[in-house]
Formats: sequence, C-alpha cells, structure tokens
Amino acid sequence: MKSQAVFYHAGCPVCVAAEHQLLDLIDSAKVNLEVVHLGDAKQRVAEAKGLGVKSVPALVVDGQVLHINFGAPIEALQ
Amino acid sequence: MKSQAVFYHAGCPVCVAAEHQLLDLIDSAKVNLEVVHLGDAKQRVAEAKGLGVKSVPALVVDGQVLHINFGAPIEALQ
Repeated sequence: MKSQAVFYHAGCPVCVAAEHQLLDLIDSAKVNLEVVHLGDAKQRVAEAKGLGVKSVPALVVDGQVLHINFGAPIEALQ
Repeated sequence: MKSQAVFYHAGCPVCVAAEHQLLDLIDSAKVNLEVVHLGDAKQRVAEAKGLGVKSVPALVVDGQVLHINFGAPIEALQ
C-alpha cells in the first residue's frame, strides 16, 4: 500500500530549500505526496496543528510528523 | 546525475522512527544513500560536524543538511 505524505510549508527560504532537497528524492511509486502552502491555504493550518506540526517545513508521513530544519513556527501562520 | 545522501543517526528512538518513515520513501534510482550510525562509527562524528550536522537524525543531501526532528545533539556522540 502506498504511503500518504503531506509536505507543509510556507514558502520560506528554509521551506523551499527542504522541498528541493528532499521531495525530489521521494519515489512517487511508494508515496502519494501532497504539497501544501499554509500561507495560501490558511484553512489547513488547523489540520496541520492537529497532526502535530509545530513548525514548517514538515513532512507528515502516514500521520507521523517529521520536522525538517526550522523555517517558521506554526503559530506564525494563523 | 544521482544525488548523494548520508543519513546520520545514533540508534535513538527518534532516529529509528525517522529512518523508517523517511528512508523507505526514497527512490534508490535517484540517490545513493548511505546510513551511518555515529555511535558505532565515532570516527565519522567529525565528518558530520564538518558538514554542519548539529543533531541527529540528519539527512545530508548533496552537502545540504536536513535536520529531522531532534534525537540527540552531535556533541553527545563524541
């Protein structure tokens, strides 16, 4: 079964760098990947917080949160 | 050209979780991935520090460091 992953970011430099470095390596045969810009989709900030996202960029894989470096706290995006 | 990536960890619970969540998704056709346990390979701690690794687990992709969650500071592994 494919993994489900969501990459939450906010367009910040750290976010963009992580997106390029990491997402390009992911095997699309193994994972359904969605990229969500929380600055553009503010209605999804609550969803991210509910999953345990404390800062962006973050990759949530099958419900488990991987915080990747530190771009901005989630509170700054509300 | 394939990317070069090194996943540095120390066998900590956060490290093991990140390894399972993230490394399984990586496309081996796109990246040469090496996994280094810094507890077992203490001679490589200096290498990791030199690359900018401040904590484990961390994935270094083509020289760029992605710190993933926080398991242990690199100083604790020396």
